[in-house]
Amino acid sequence: MSVTAPKGFRAAGVAAGIKDSGNKDLTLVVNDGPLDVAAGVFTRNKVKAAPVLWSRQVLQTGRVRAAVLNSGGANACTGPEGFQDTHATAEHVASVLGVGAVEVAVCSTGLIGARLPMDRLTEGVTTAAGRLDSSAEAGLDAAEAVMTTDTVPKQAQAGTNGWTIGGFAKGAGMCAPNMATMLSLLTTDAVLDQAQADAALRQAVDATFNTLDIDGGTSTNDTVLLLCSGASGTAPDQDEFTALLTTVCRDLVEQLQADAEGVTKHVTITVRGAATDHEALLAAKAVAEDNLCKTAFFGSDPNWGRVAMAVGNAPTDFDQSKLDITINGVEVCLAGTAAEDRHKADLSGKDITVEVDLHAGDGKATVLTTDLSHSYVEENSAYSS
Amino acid sequence: MSVTAPKGFRAAGVAAGIKDSGNKDLTLVVNDGPLDVAAGVFTRNKVKAAPVLWSRQVLQTGRVRAAVLNSGGANACTGPEGFQDTHATAEHVASVLGVGAVEVAVCSTGLIGARLPMDRLTEGVTTAAGRLDSSAEAGLDAAEAVMTTDTVPKQAQAGTNGWTIGGFAKGAGMCAPNMATMLSLLTTDAVLDQAQADAALRQAVDATFNTLDIDGGTSTNDTVLLLCSGASGTAPDQDEFTALLTTVCRDLVEQLQADAEGVTKHVTITVRGAATDHEALLAAKAVAEDNLCKTAFFGSDPNWGRVAMAVGNAPTDFDQSKLDITINGVEVCLAGTAAEDRHKADLSGKDITVEVDLHAGDGKATVLTTDLSHSYVEENSAYSS
Repeated sequence: MSVTAPKGFRAAGVAAGIKDSGNKDLTLVVNDGPLDVAAGVFTRNKVKAAPVLWSRQVLQTGRVRAAVLNSGGANACTGPEGFQDTHATAEHVASVLGVGAVEVAVCSTGLIGARLPMDRLTEGVTTAAGRLDSSAEAGLDAAEAVMTTDTVPKQAQAGTNGWTIGGFAKGAGMCAPNMATMLSLLTTDAVLDQAQADAALRQAVDATFNTLDIDGGTSTNDTVLLLCSGASGTAPDQDEFTALLTTVCRDLVEQLQADAEGVTKHVTITVRGAATDHEALLAAKAVAEDNLCKTAFFGSDPNWGRVAMAVGNAPTDFDQSKLDITINGVEVCLAGTAAEDRHKADLSGKDITVEVDLHAGDGKATVLTTDLSHSYVEENSAYSS
Repeated sequence: MSVTAPKGFRAAGVAAGIKDSGNKDLTLVVNDGPLDVAAGVFTRNKVKAAPVLWSRQVLQTGRVRAAVLNSGGANACTGPEGFQDTHATAEHVASVLGVGAVEVAVCSTGLIGARLPMDRLTEGVTTAAGRLDSSAEAGLDAAEAVMTTDTVPKQAQAGTNGWTIGGFAKGAGMCAPNMATMLSLLTTDAVLDQAQADAALRQAVDATFNTLDIDGGTSTNDTVLLLCSGASGTAPDQDEFTALLTTVCRDLVEQLQADAEGVTKHVTITVRGAATDHEALLAAKAVAEDNLCKTAFFGSDPNWGRVAMAVGNAPTDFDQSKLDITINGVEVCLAGTAAEDRHKADLSGKDITVEVDLHAGDGKATVLTTDLSHSYVEENSAYSS
């Protein structure tokens, strides 16, 4: 169920002492090859963490031998010194593993604006290197050591025709991935070249991670990496690989949604009939990010007027006299006015679907989000994260 | 302290039975002249309420003799029938007052998607017409009858050189005015022509109502109207009038911020050094609308990393290595990295100021917002509004 499922990968997750809690906080994943093909996508936030700046450079080579990930500190807004910390981390991993620093991707997650405790981190790397293993337990350790406000680790895997894809992800708040989610590492033993890996990753991420929007907060550290060992010896069809990679990513995204901060509802918002897919996405995100819609979801209230208000604020063209809104299968708004009694839409369960038809074109998009609950407010006001 | 302060205006606020609570819910304001000059600004939401569609047409004539406003129902997403209700309301006001329907502006606020109880509403208009008065008490009644989740009426007035401006406003949630806030009516006895009134209103609203952002939810009903009676006989200088109108509007906006749903903090966000004023406004709004920033404000937590994340997500160009953030006077982030200890920024009081300098130009904007508290969630999830 993890990054160690495909052949050619070893992983470890240890408690390096970066987190005060003493929980696991450092993950090391090594690609033993024979291939070292890699692709990555990174946050579009203009404020980028040091590990994002570093790993973007590494990924330009299209090759990664190892990835080191820490929780307990984002290493964002830490200036040249923070970048130097990331560089030193890669250098240390490289020397321990006998590879080049430019072959080591680095990811961090946690509080923005604080330097990392480098002594503990490098010692943790050494410890993790000694525990590298291809077992499922090692994969689970790796998935656990990247958790912050996550309450459960998120892992997924799928395989066909002799090759396999595995992966983990983390992220519960500040989570509106744009190019990527907070942190996710995917592995495969399929034989791919860099162009194939890159194209598959971008397509899969666009269809999955980029449709998740918990709170509109695209983080400074969002990263998704795909490492290919080629150890299966099998070269899949590109479409087949992309489809399976999308399946694994969707699995992870659903786990992220289910474990979002303060979540009590899993909300799926689909907008159809926009002028373009992009306008449909913007309209769906406008609903997903609107606090009046989100509190109505929390209150199990099929208040479709708030959905109409939110869609009307999106940069999306439509004629309000054609607006249809369906909530949990009940057509509550037809041609811009009340239709079925909204109280027929029973939102007392955990799953809510909102379908909007703008009748302005063929554009379509679906966004996954959550409600805005007291627990979200509590979790995000009670301490710095 | 109200719309009846300038000479030439009478007002009334009555309980017409539109609200189940039995509270006042219908306001009538009449301009007795000699002038009937008027200007109005309306929501930019693509979903516009019937009274907005009606009043936009009325305001194209530049003349308004009376305004009727109701709470207890927004008359939005009500289709052609809802527009007919608004038209019938204007016709009834016109017949009772002996003016033309096209001289009557209509505003509504309340739940989106429900028709108004027209029998009660028209009866309420007749009652209100019988109670029209130029007293401060009548002005207060008028301000009270537009309240929805507002806990206090909001009134303001200012005068100089023999002429006066008065006004009221309502709005506590679904409040991110774009052209106007939920509902505000301003009156003056200054002598102005339509072009002067229009220019002054647009300038004042841009500098005040449009800088308030409680929850990003630009409503379907936002309207600000300015009615000029000219009864003072004094024609002010344009700049002088605009300045005083801006003062009155700012007073109302500060009252809206203070009474926002669930508010525990009054937050002022200033962004300097953007490429343009517009980019500065977008960056300030990105912070104002970000739930991670808003929950941190609620928790009195000077978590500037969340401010950096939010600004980085705005469509605003800047170099993260030049980003400065000051919270309550403490420079917590300098040149993109931690500066003063953030715990020196004491946010335990009610007022929080966030100053961001992007060092990318001369653009500047200030936005007023609030925190995201348990009360906001409670108020917006507990019942439909």
